[in-house]
Amino acid sequence: MYGKGVSRFGVSMPSELLKEFDEMVARMGYDRSKAIQLATRNFLTEYKWTREEGVVVGSLTIIYNHETRGLEETLTDIQHEYRGLISSTTHVHLDERNCLEILAVKGEVKSIQILAKRLMAERGVKQLKFATLML
Amino acid sequence: MYGKGVSRFGVSMPSELLKEFDEMVARMGYDRSKAIQLATRNFLTEYKWTREEGVVVGSLTIIYNHETRGLEETLTDIQHEYRGLISSTTHVHLDERNCLEILAVKGEVKSIQILAKRLMAERGVKQLKFATLML
Amino acid sequence: MYGKGVSRFGVSMPSELLKEFDEMVARMGYDRSKAIQLATRNFLTEYKWTREEGVVVGSLTIIYNHETRGLEETLTDIQHEYRGLISSTTHVHLDERNCLEILAVKGEVKSIQILAKRLMAERGVKQLKFATLML
Amino acid sequence: MYGKGVSRFGVSMPSELLKEFDEMVARMGYDRSKAIQLATRNFLTEYKWTREEGVVVGSLTIIYNHETRGLEETLTDIQHEYRGLISSTTHVHLDERNCLEILAVKGEVKSIQILAKRLMAERGVKQLKFATLML
Repeated sequence: MYGKGVSRFGVSMPSELLKEFDEMVARMGYDRSKAIQLATRNFLTEYKWTREEGVVVGSLTIIYNHETRGLEETLTDIQHEYRGLISSTTHVHLDERNCLEILAVKGEVKSIQILAKRLMAERGVKQLKFATLML
Repeated sequence: MYGKGVSRFGVSMPSELLKEFDEMVARMGYDRSKAIQLATRNFLTEYKWTREEGVVVGSLTIIYNHETRGLEETLTDIQHEYRGLISSTTHVHLDERNCLEILAVKGEVKSIQILAKRLMAERGVKQLKFATLML
Repeated sequence: MYGKGVSRFGVSMPSELLKEFDEMVARMGYDRSKAIQLATRNFLTEYKWTREEGVVVGSLTIIYNHETRGLEETLTDIQHEYRGLISSTTHVHLDERNCLEILAVKGEVKSIQILAKRLMAERGVKQLKFATLML
Repeated sequence: MYGKGVSRFGVSMPSELLKEFDEMVARMGYDRSKAIQLATRNFLTEYKWTREEGVVVGSLTIIYNHETRGLEETLTDIQHEYRGLISSTTHVHLDERNCLEILAVKGEVKSIQILAKRLMAERGVKQLKFATLML
């Protein structure tokens, strides 16, 4: 049924939604199929994330105040504990106080969620965003 | 062209992706069209770029197939064009085919959105997620 | 003989050499033992590198002209082939033409040397430097 | 203090490092003092900072023990102070104890040398290698 390469199938959609979608697609310079594929991948990733199952790749991005006493060491300790999930961490020195830190991650959704919670729980960590994608 | 009510159109998709999508659809108890609609609405919300102004920091994370002819060079060309926004790009070699690329960005929201659109529009780029944070 | 923790031993050295060493050590704000340890680790690393044996960690840093036709793709192909050695690659967009690319590596000396040679052999790669350290 | 001829002094070193060093020394057919002298001469040459001027790009790669009390914070403080030179820092969590950190740098040779000295002087920093390239 799926064969190799590319499959083609029909979709029905409220005309209003399709119109809005087509406008966006045109603005972005895509074609419909490309955009539907992007949307589908995001949807699958969110599904995995919500169900807490499967393997994803992506990034965790945090901003923190490096002057918070002991924070640097705690963040590094946590990352070493979860180093199996982290390919590398990129650190950008934003200004006197603020650090942007981006962890490249790959692993079980559940483990990545725990890592994210651990980081976010630390005093001095101002924001955390995750970007999860399908392999 | 869109009329009232429901429109029907054809979509093409890598068979591999369709298979995984259908499995999820079955588990959720939806049909394909229903799920594509949900995915589309999410997509519209996620990439309905805000009209906000101001400077943000954060990351753009993409996954792409580096075997797509000319893709590497196009992605680098785009990034060089927008290098004023990009502190550095981290590249993780996931497997034979797939690359995870994370851009550490800082700049005007609008400019970062344009950069994201440019990257996402390229054939071979499978997903893009942005994580922008306020300084 | 070695016990746990720290060992202490005597060293003899031409007075002239020691004087030059002490001056440098003072300028750098070290003490002799710290500096001897740094020197010893570098020496061990170089020994492994020359003998082409053992495991090292470190970085390969290259500058290349991303406008060279096909170079981006070749560099990525090579890195994917050797992805077992590369934790991540950081890419900095220097100017219109020039890219700084830094590979974080870990693995057998021999394999890292082969990877370095492969990268350096490509037309458009202007310089390559490696920084190898002991784990 | 140095007199003519040969001086003798005591050195302390982690026993683990001394063990590996002695094994190498034995295989090379040297004695410890001879090997320390060679290591010292290399060290003097490698870090005999040039008086060159001009702008270079490249990387500083260090390995350190993140368990050293206060080290993480000191390293981040130093990097924030010199953030004008550093595009980004990549951190790889090697094992329980050891961190590989790679700074992508661009700036005046002299300033980069000062940054390197500051980092290398910290207790817990085991090695530092720089790879500077001309644009």
